[in-house]
Amino acid sequence: MLIQLDSDPQASTFDAIVAVDAGVDQLLTRSGVRPNEVAPLVHGAIFTRGLDDLKQSAIFIGGSDVQAGEALLDAVRQAFFGPFRVSVMLDSNGANTTAAAAVLAVERHLSLAGARVLVLGGTGPVGRRVARLLAASGAVVGVASRERSRAEMACSEIQRRLAQPAQLAPLDPHQLPAFLAEAQALVATGAAGAKLLDEEQWRKAERLRVMVDLNAVPPAGIQGVEPQDRQVERHGVICYGALGVGGWKMKIHRRAVQMLFEKNDQVLDAEEILALGRQLLQPTSS
Amino acid sequence: MLIQLDSDPQASTFDAIVAVDAGVDQLLTRSGVRPNEVAPLVHGAIFTRGLDDLKQSAIFIGGSDVQAGEALLDAVRQAFFGPFRVSVMLDSNGANTTAAAAVLAVERHLSLAGARVLVLGGTGPVGRRVARLLAASGAVVGVASRERSRAEMACSEIQRRLAQPAQLAPLDPHQLPAFLAEAQALVATGAAGAKLLDEEQWRKAERLRVMVDLNAVPPAGIQGVEPQDRQVERHGVICYGALGVGGWKMKIHRRAVQMLFEKNDQVLDAEEILALGRQLLQPTSS
Amino acid sequence: MLIQLDSDPQASTFDAIVAVDAGVDQLLTRSGVRPNEVAPLVHGAIFTRGLDDLKQSAIFIGGSDVQAGEALLDAVRQAFFGPFRVSVMLDSNGANTTAAAAVLAVERHLSLAGARVLVLGGTGPVGRRVARLLAASGAVVGVASRERSRAEMACSEIQRRLAQPAQLAPLDPHQLPAFLAEAQALVATGAAGAKLLDEEQWRKAERLRVMVDLNAVPPAGIQGVEPQDRQVERHGVICYGALGVGGWKMKIHRRAVQMLFEKNDQVLDAEEILALGRQLLQPTSS
Repeated sequence: MLIQLDSDPQASTFDAIVAVDAGVDQLLTRSGVRPNEVAPLVHGAIFTRGLDDLKQSAIFIGGSDVQAGEALLDAVRQAFFGPFRVSVMLDSNGANTTAAAAVLAVERHLSLAGARVLVLGGTGPVGRRVARLLAASGAVVGVASRERSRAEMACSEIQRRLAQPAQLAPLDPHQLPAFLAEAQALVATGAAGAKLLDEEQWRKAERLRVMVDLNAVPPAGIQGVEPQDRQVERHGVICYGALGVGGWKMKIHRRAVQMLFEKNDQVLDAEEILALGRQLLQPTSS
Repeated sequence: MLIQLDSDPQASTFDAIVAVDAGVDQLLTRSGVRPNEVAPLVHGAIFTRGLDDLKQSAIFIGGSDVQAGEALLDAVRQAFFGPFRVSVMLDSNGANTTAAAAVLAVERHLSLAGARVLVLGGTGPVGRRVARLLAASGAVVGVASRERSRAEMACSEIQRRLAQPAQLAPLDPHQLPAFLAEAQALVATGAAGAKLLDEEQWRKAERLRVMVDLNAVPPAGIQGVEPQDRQVERHGVICYGALGVGGWKMKIHRRAVQMLFEKNDQVLDAEEILALGRQLLQPTSS
Repeated sequence: MLIQLDSDPQASTFDAIVAVDAGVDQLLTRSGVRPNEVAPLVHGAIFTRGLDDLKQSAIFIGGSDVQAGEALLDAVRQAFFGPFRVSVMLDSNGANTTAAAAVLAVERHLSLAGARVLVLGGTGPVGRRVARLLAASGAVVGVASRERSRAEMACSEIQRRLAQPAQLAPLDPHQLPAFLAEAQALVATGAAGAKLLDEEQWRKAERLRVMVDLNAVPPAGIQGVEPQDRQVERHGVICYGALGVGGWKMKIHRRAVQMLFEKNDQVLDAEEILALGRQLLQPTSS
């Protein structure tokens, strides 16, 4: 039994189908859910079954708006009390599974500890998650935005969510070239249709080994990277496109849904979903 | 196939999960249902299958607002014609299953015929149902409210729904002590968080043998009764709390859902649900 | 996996139950769907599964408003690209399955090529479909309306949707008697409760062999035809009522839903649904 709480007026069919494909028998979908409506929906899952059966119910939070999803997750947590809880996963707009897939692509070719990684569009919901996951793994992360103040705010917010001091560098367009010149990896997470980097820019970056462009709709976020790219080498740089990491994203999503039913007290947000992706895709190295 | 018609913007997950646990294969949930939307939803259940198969479909009416649920039940009944009908159950806010569980707790320790039973918060939807069920079983029922006019209105409404003249006494706070002094049982059905009776008040009632407090959230409606109480004796009075009767309530709810599929012409409202609870919990005495 | 996109605030339970009875395992229902919400709902069905598995998902468009359903169908088609598509069926207000059943009733007793068939209420959504299907089968179709201009507009619209020039005659109430005098068949598709033709009118039509009245609610659209009529002869004319063709309509509806899952690139609108009805009901003659 999976309860799908979706912040959009029409709940995602994508999330619903992945849930069914992950083996969910009964899917209860609620559309247009607002935080103040969450408590009775959570209590319905808690009060209908005994403590031992709680792990047979779980909650999935989705929708196109990641901030709205985060507010729903907060409301879900507040509705729990003591051992009366069910496992819950947040993947609004696919942000967590996408970020996890991007980080997995980078670390396949690079040891993250101490690596310099540039995140383009780093202030958006996916970008923040990518930067957070990279920083937590020890990378020196450049968080790029068109405006310096937004980059700084994003870095502060990311740092607040991390247990230890991280190496986060806010970058405006003027500061970007210097960081790029030393960067070993690059992840583009901009809005669909926004070109973030010209090919001549990244070809000058001599240390660059891997690039991930999460935009699936032309024009590419990183000029020269194709959506289908999956470990394709271009001018000496290993490239991944949105569809190229899409298979991993789907596997991670399905597996995360399945994990929800193994215990009743899990909260699957970015970190937990990356950890799960590492187990799933790199069984021999973990 | 159960059609869940819910008056709330987000249909109850509680009712949905109980339905699934009762064995419902296919659950069709409609949220925010208004009476004028009911007819086509009922006709969809009636016109898709032959007369012999009608009992394979049923309707459950829920939501937090009992009056809204009653209006939906009226609309459902009006949408039937002749033998073209399906069984229907009303349990908005759990009012019917809760009221049945409370009455069952009382009658476990008391013969209702002629017994004096005080219903605190007797003008609310659960209170009216408790009072109605008790009165129909022959009890002398005190219906208490903060305002005498509301208590009187509730008694009139309850009497209208009963086939025979019942013994219903409207009580305001000044009249309450006299009734309490002679009462053998006491059921508190007030809103969460409202204390309805001090311990020193009920301890003075010398004939009192059983008390049921349906409020699960502190403070207790009846001071001294704990939510978990299940046949716990306190100062010579057998006490039940909301969680203490919760197991019966759940059993009755599940069984009622199952019963819907045995025939196609049942209307399960308070009386029918109490009758079912009696069968379920007192198999040897019925 | 069937995705039910419904234009009404409360999605049809009729369509949902027929889908389940047709063997659909998982039904994802979305209510109050507007065209601008369709793309992500379609993409959710396309991007979650591989090309080979696309035929395991399909879309059903319903709701009481046929025009709204047609707009949803357009939006669904626009959301497809290349081979990334799923099969889709339109049956808002049962218009396509009802029209198909009516045409099947007529052609059971009449060779449509060259036959003169009068469609009463021919400007409504069901009427236009009946006229279109008859015209495409070679009939000379009279499209009757209270206003000549509406009849003419309907004929133009019907012709636009046909591959070849068709024989469509717009008729106002003054022109109707002349067409009726030569008509061999008659289909009434008016709104519930509107009488379209007196018995004395149709009894004068000497060539009339078959009549279908799709109105199930008294008064009859064609005076003298009963809703239950199924090949009942009245004054030498074979009569069908709404319930009389209802069994065929249901069979066609169920079979159409099943067909959706045979390939991933079908669009089941009026013509395809009639073709399917012919296969289903006249296996020996096709």
